[in-house]
Amino acid sequence: MVRYVSSILALALTISPAGAFSPAFVGRLQAAPASSVLAMSAATDFDLNTYLSEKCGLIEAALDASITSTVPETDRICESMKYSLMAGGKRIRPALCLATCNMFGGSDDDAMPTAVALEMIHTMSLIHDDLPSMDDDDLRRGKATNHVLYGEDVAILAGDALLSTSFEHVARFTPKSIPADRTLDVIARLGQSVGAVGLAGGQVKDLECEAKAGVELSELTWIHTHKTAALLKVAVASGAILGGATPAEVEACEIFALDIGLAFQVADDILDVTADTATLGKTAGKDEETDKTTYVKLMGLEGSRKEARRLVDEAKGALAPFGDRAAPLLAIADFIVNRKN
Amino acid sequence: MVRYVSSILALALTISPAGAFSPAFVGRLQAAPASSVLAMSAATDFDLNTYLSEKCGLIEAALDASITSTVPETDRICESMKYSLMAGGKRIRPALCLATCNMFGGSDDDAMPTAVALEMIHTMSLIHDDLPSMDDDDLRRGKATNHVLYGEDVAILAGDALLSTSFEHVARFTPKSIPADRTLDVIARLGQSVGAVGLAGGQVKDLECEAKAGVELSELTWIHTHKTAALLKVAVASGAILGGATPAEVEACEIFALDIGLAFQVADDILDVTADTATLGKTAGKDEETDKTTYVKLMGLEGSRKEARRLVDEAKGALAPFGDRAAPLLAIADFIVNRKN
Repeated sequence: MVRYVSSILALALTISPAGAFSPAFVGRLQAAPASSVLAMSAATDFDLNTYLSEKCGLIEAALDASITSTVPETDRICESMKYSLMAGGKRIRPALCLATCNMFGGSDDDAMPTAVALEMIHTMSLIHDDLPSMDDDDLRRGKATNHVLYGEDVAILAGDALLSTSFEHVARFTPKSIPADRTLDVIARLGQSVGAVGLAGGQVKDLECEAKAGVELSELTWIHTHKTAALLKVAVASGAILGGATPAEVEACEIFALDIGLAFQVADDILDVTADTATLGKTAGKDEETDKTTYVKLMGLEGSRKEARRLVDEAKGALAPFGDRAAPLLAIADFIVNRKN
Repeated sequence: MVRYVSSILALALTISPAGAFSPAFVGRLQAAPASSVLAMSAATDFDLNTYLSEKCGLIEAALDASITSTVPETDRICESMKYSLMAGGKRIRPALCLATCNMFGGSDDDAMPTAVALEMIHTMSLIHDDLPSMDDDDLRRGKATNHVLYGEDVAILAGDALLSTSFEHVARFTPKSIPADRTLDVIARLGQSVGAVGLAGGQVKDLECEAKAGVELSELTWIHTHKTAALLKVAVASGAILGGATPAEVEACEIFALDIGLAFQVADDILDVTADTATLGKTAGKDEETDKTTYVKLMGLEGSRKEARRLVDEAKGALAPFGDRAAPLLAIADFIVNRKN
């Protein structure tokens, strides 16, 4: 079955409950050959691990504070919402949002309500995706999925509540120093990113394609652009807008995000056929076994490698005007395509 | 099983596909005894039928225009979203929003994006409520429910898309003549009305109470305040804010909405034991049969009648400062408690 927000979850970053990135991750970055990862961008001297570790500490604290039951009647729904929101994860969307806001001179506080909203939306998509009528998964990140613990009915409602609360959070807590029309722009884009031309639409199209033979490259790209890349796109666009970017600058950031979203998916398809199960941390060769349409199936292994590189180059090119200020985003882009699992 | 947004659906108004109220409804109002309905308020000479018929024509047109598939890839999700959004209904939440906005001098255009959003949210709640893991209903308003036609997975996603699109719609289409901070206030309240202290929280509490004996009046009131009245409350509060009401005026409108929301539920419980199945249009006596906790069970029939009247009186009292301008809202309040089915 398909994934709602996709395999970007499989990003190799591992994160401790306290939000610190693991030594294993540091080791991988340090061991990276000169031809890959950090050596390939303006981010050469940039310490992505330290950067993400610091940002994720802030993000975890903000997420933890974002849901509190204020009356006994809401204890159960808040527990269900918070269980999934705090169940780990790389917080890559909030981190992209903060990093982009910073790039344009905005503070973490300016973007944090939106960063929290992005993770609420992502969490909603995971809860609903795991439901029996969707992917029917009992485990996520080694823990029982929401509906296994709370029941399908509560899981559906907890997802709905997270989705609606995400918009409330942006509207209510974005600092008043941000012009209100910018916040409205962020909300409009967030809403769009989950709708027919976002997560939900990408997912429905994916369901359609599962049922038919001969899926074309344009269809595959449409699916991943919407079910995976759309939320990354709004993460950076929101950060840019809150940081005061011009419309042209926002567009440049969106090109970056769409490209790294697709690059991630291409890299994922490559790893499925090239990595062994132990390295991958999940069953290798599963795509071929289930006859899933992938980039490797449509473009071949070499073609897919070229495509991943082209996408990352294009992503980085979009951020060239921002020079060294783009270092965190460039490092994330390199990491996505050079990961080994 | 419980209802997500409740039996307010059963409001006796019947509406043609074109949005006009039926002659049967006019007949019922005209035949009302002097002691009830229109005779009891400043709305004596107010023609609710004509008023709602006109408003609903505008609302239906706005709803119809609110979802359009722009690329072939989104045809299916848009069809699923639109199927439920345009499947009839009284449009009572949008009508309350427009009427309250008008009361403070705002135009229909000022409030229409929010009115559309309210109906999108209501529709999402119905789609998710009908799912097999919730109420498991195959029919709504005589038509196949969303998941029966499109599958459970698409139905869940169509609900998610409607919910997110509702916020996008308010943020994007509320006229720029409305100060942006007012629109943000509306969005924050809309988000809250679906979350832990809104629809979803009320529903989860209802599920909890289904599983236990000895539900108390305070619990019953909490449930209906949140799963039914919260969306009515934000409908009038949003209309008031968009129309330029002061905070005190917004609060008065909220008291009105909470009271009529509860009054509706009390009236519903009374009808279940007093009306026959033919008049009711659904099985009478069902609450007692399923041992459901109702106002009648906890307060008795006479106590419930008094409570319904008290709530409507309190609702009307809250709008007293607005004089004749409140006529549409007062007429709606009377109608809710005096209906026969």
